[in-house]
Amino acid sequence: MGDYGQYDVPTVDTQVNFKVGQPAPSMLPLDYIREAANAKLAETDPLYLQYGHLYGFEKCRDSLVKFLTERYQYEVDKEKIMLTNGVTGTLALVCSLFLQAGDLVFAEEPTYFLAKSIFKDFKLNCRQIPMDEEGLDVYKLEQALEAGPVPKLMYVVPTAHNPTGRTLSAERREKLAALAAKYDFILLCDEVYQLLTFPHITPPPPMMTFAKHDKVLCMGSFSKILAPALRAGWLQGSKEILAQITACGQLDSSGGLNPVIFGIVQRAIDLGLQDKHLDKTRETLYTRYSTLEKALEEFLPEGTTFEKPQGGYFVLVKLPEGQLAADLLVEATENHKVCFLPGASFGDSMKNYLRLSFSYYDAEDIRVGIERLANAIRAYQAKLQ
Amino acid sequence: MGDYGQYDVPTVDTQVNFKVGQPAPSMLPLDYIREAANAKLAETDPLYLQYGHLYGFEKCRDSLVKFLTERYQYEVDKEKIMLTNGVTGTLALVCSLFLQAGDLVFAEEPTYFLAKSIFKDFKLNCRQIPMDEEGLDVYKLEQALEAGPVPKLMYVVPTAHNPTGRTLSAERREKLAALAAKYDFILLCDEVYQLLTFPHITPPPPMMTFAKHDKVLCMGSFSKILAPALRAGWLQGSKEILAQITACGQLDSSGGLNPVIFGIVQRAIDLGLQDKHLDKTRETLYTRYSTLEKALEEFLPEGTTFEKPQGGYFVLVKLPEGQLAADLLVEATENHKVCFLPGASFGDSMKNYLRLSFSYYDAEDIRVGIERLANAIRAYQAKLQ
Repeated sequence: MGDYGQYDVPTVDTQVNFKVGQPAPSMLPLDYIREAANAKLAETDPLYLQYGHLYGFEKCRDSLVKFLTERYQYEVDKEKIMLTNGVTGTLALVCSLFLQAGDLVFAEEPTYFLAKSIFKDFKLNCRQIPMDEEGLDVYKLEQALEAGPVPKLMYVVPTAHNPTGRTLSAERREKLAALAAKYDFILLCDEVYQLLTFPHITPPPPMMTFAKHDKVLCMGSFSKILAPALRAGWLQGSKEILAQITACGQLDSSGGLNPVIFGIVQRAIDLGLQDKHLDKTRETLYTRYSTLEKALEEFLPEGTTFEKPQGGYFVLVKLPEGQLAADLLVEATENHKVCFLPGASFGDSMKNYLRLSFSYYDAEDIRVGIERLANAIRAYQAKLQ
Repeated sequence: MGDYGQYDVPTVDTQVNFKVGQPAPSMLPLDYIREAANAKLAETDPLYLQYGHLYGFEKCRDSLVKFLTERYQYEVDKEKIMLTNGVTGTLALVCSLFLQAGDLVFAEEPTYFLAKSIFKDFKLNCRQIPMDEEGLDVYKLEQALEAGPVPKLMYVVPTAHNPTGRTLSAERREKLAALAAKYDFILLCDEVYQLLTFPHITPPPPMMTFAKHDKVLCMGSFSKILAPALRAGWLQGSKEILAQITACGQLDSSGGLNPVIFGIVQRAIDLGLQDKHLDKTRETLYTRYSTLEKALEEFLPEGTTFEKPQGGYFVLVKLPEGQLAADLLVEATENHKVCFLPGASFGDSMKNYLRLSFSYYDAEDIRVGIERLANAIRAYQAKLQ
C-alpha cells in the first residue's frame, strides 16, 4: 500500500479500473493548497486553533457565499448555509438527527451506492423510485407518494447524477420540490456535481431555488472541486432547519466542523485558486469524457449503448436486456484487465448496467480501457451462446 | 463575534466564565502547527489530497503508535488503532453503527454533559450509574446489571473525569472490564484526559490494557493535547470491532477521516512538537489548578467543599445539601460577574454541585473569579434565610 489513498489504484498495465470515482492524482491541486495554507498560517491569531463556530468559520462562509453566488448564479443567503465535513458527514448528521432505525427513505433508482450503505449503517428502509433519461421520474414519485407510505426523507442527486450522469430539468425540479412540500418530507439534495457540468453546459439552478418548504437541504462538497482529503463541504437549508441542526449535541460538543481546514479553504477561495482549479477541473473532465465518448462509439459492440451526460464523473453503459454486468465483471477483471461498477450496486433493476468513471485515467488510458471493455463484452457474450 | 471560536469568551472585567472547557488562547500552539504544516506541505506527492485510507493516514498511525506507547507505557498495537475526527465524531459513528433509537446506554452519574446531548441526538435511553469519590461505583453498576436491563453500551471517562476530576483505580478498571465482558456490552471509554494528569501523577493504565472482550473501545483526542480545531483523534479497539467500524458506509464514502489534518499531526509528532506541547500543557494546567485550589481554600464559605482532581480540566464544587447550583448561577451571573456549569446539566442527582474549569483563565483571573464565586455563594445563601 502507498502512503496515501483509500486504496491502491492500479496502473493501466495491470488494470484500467473505471470503478474509481476519485480525481486523478494530476487533478489534485497540491500547489494551490500549499499556497492557501501558507497564506493562512502566516496569520498570528491562535484562536484559529480553538473550537469553532457552529455554522463554521465565519470568514470562510462569507467567501463561500460570494463564490456560490457567482457560480450558482443566484444570491446565496449566508444565513441559509453552514460548513460541513463533506457530503458523507452531512448525510450521517442528517440521518442521526431526523431519522431512526426502520424509517422509510426514498432515493433514485439507481442511486449513489455508498449513500445506500450509509442508510444501511442507520438501519433505514430505503425504497428507490425509477428514473428515466431525464432523471428522477417525478410522476412515478407522485404515484408512490399518493399510494403511500410517505418517506421521512428523500435523497436525490439532481445534477450529473451518480451513476447515470443525468440532470433533472427545471420543470421536474419544480415538481419534486412541490411534492416534498405537499407530503412534508425532507428533500436532501446531493449537489456534489452541480458545479461540475461540462464547460459549455449551464445546468438548471440548484435545488434551493426551487424550495417550497423549509425542509429542503442541499449538500455541496469541496471533495471534487478542490480536494477530497480536506473533508470539507457545505449545507444549505432554511434558517429553521439549520438552527435545528446546529443546536444538536454533536455540533455543540465538537464546535464547528473542521475549522483549520476551512481557514485554508477560505484562502483558496479568496486567492482565486478555487476558481482557477474548478475551471481547470471542468476542462479536464470534459476532455476525458470526450475521449471516453469517442472510444465507446468506436469500440462498443452493437446492442450495448450508453447515455451522454452533461457533466460529473460518470457514464452509464447498458448491456442488452438479460445480460448481467456482474458476470461481465468476472470476465473483464480476470481476462481483460479492466474493471467497473456493476449495476446491482446502485439499484436492483440495474443488473444489465455498468458505471464507468472518467475522472481518474488520462485520455490514452481511457481508450485502452474501453477497447479492453469492448473485448470483455464480446467474450462474455460469446460465452452466453 | 470574533473571527474564531465556538462562542465569545468574556474577559475578566465582564465575567469569569468557569464553564468554558476549552484551552486558553495562550495554550493553542499556532507556532507548532505552522511548523508542522510547513514541513508537511514541503512534500510533493499530490496523493496527500486524495480520499484517504479507512484506518487513517498510515504514517500518522505509525507515529501515533510510538507516541502512545511511550506515553501510555504499554505496547500499543497498530492493528488495534484507527484515526478519527475526534471524540464527538467517534461517539456519533459508534452510536450510528451499534445502537438505535430507544436502546439503553449507561453512563456515569454525573457524566460529560454533551455526551448526554449526543445520546439524545440518537434518541437513546441513557441511564446513569452513581460514582463515589473513587470514580464509577462498579459495585452499584454490578447490581444494576444483575437487576437488568443490560445496556448495549456504557460510556465512561475513566481518568480525570468530566466533570468530577475523579480517576478510576486499576482495581475498579479491572472490575468494569470484567462486567462489560460478562454482560457483553460495548465499553466506550473517553480517554481525552488520560494524557493530561498533573505532571507528578501517573494515572492507572488506559482501559485497553484491561479489556476482557472484543467490545472495548477507547477514544483519544488531539483537541486538548494539541488543538481542538484540528478535529483529530483516535480510536482503539479489537481488530474485530475496528474491522466492523471501517467496513461501514460512512467510512467507505468519505475515505479515512481528515487525512490532510493527519499529515500535519504526523509531522507535529515526528518533530517532537506534540511531546513539547503536551509537557507544557500539563505544567500549565497544574499551575492553574494549584491557583484554583488555593483560592477555593481561601475564599469558599464553610460548608461548601471541593474535590482535588489528579488532572484534566475540571473541579467539582459541592454546595450544602438542598442548595441549588442553578439558583446560585442566577445570582453569580447577574450580580457577581462569574459563571459555571450547574450540576443538573450532567446528572439529576447533582443539583447542589457545580463544575469549574481551570483551563481557560490565567492564575490572576482564576483568583478573581473564585473570590467572586465565594461572594455569590454567600449572597445566595443569605437570601435563603
